[in-house]
Amino acid sequence: MEKHLAISLSKAIHQKARLGIMSILMASEEAEFNYFKEKLNLTDGNLSSHLSLLEKEKYIRIRKKFIKKKPKTLCRMTEKGRQAFEEYLENLEKIIRSFPPDERRSK
Amino acid sequence: MEKHLAISLSKAIHQKARLGIMSILMASEEAEFNYFKEKLNLTDGNLSSHLSLLEKEKYIRIRKKFIKKKPKTLCRMTEKGRQAFEEYLENLEKIIRSFPPDERRSK
Repeated sequence: MEKHLAISLSKAIHQKARLGIMSILMASEEAEFNYFKEKLNLTDGNLSSHLSLLEKEKYIRIRKKFIKKKPKTLCRMTEKGRQAFEEYLENLEKIIRSFPPDERRSK
Repeated sequence: MEKHLAISLSKAIHQKARLGIMSILMASEEAEFNYFKEKLNLTDGNLSSHLSLLEKEKYIRIRKKFIKKKPKTLCRMTEKGRQAFEEYLENLEKIIRSFPPDERRSK
């Protein structure tokens, strides 16, 4: 039996906070730790572990920089991350497309 | 700061196996335990706990029935489940729509 598409979704990306991180990085070249933290309502510890996981997958690159004497953590998406995210979005689209909005109510 | 849409996705539905369960029930009136199990590559224990969680949320209804003398576990989506799933799909669509396929590569 053919498996359902849902189970082929990337574990690294599908988690809500990481989906948020990847979405933000897909839309902007670079984003900063505190921006993610506020935008995604995460604690320092939670955000750190999500970023670490994505870095380990080589989906993002993290660098530290001093801006106005304050240390900042800056993140960027890698080419590998972009490819993985595109594949993820395509799979998600396929799942969604199997339920066209007009037909949802009549099923 | 406005929060990212990703964090408003339903926890109960977003988990991969449960997304699969809800997708299957959205497409078919009723589905059976072993069908989910195969289609979603789950163990009995895992599938049971995902079904229980969805039942607790009142998103699905579970009933036991004897078919050819064998006990079967049958699941259906409730109206509450359908509404929650539709809302989930709409949020997901909004996230995906912020990355139109044509523009993904040029960003």
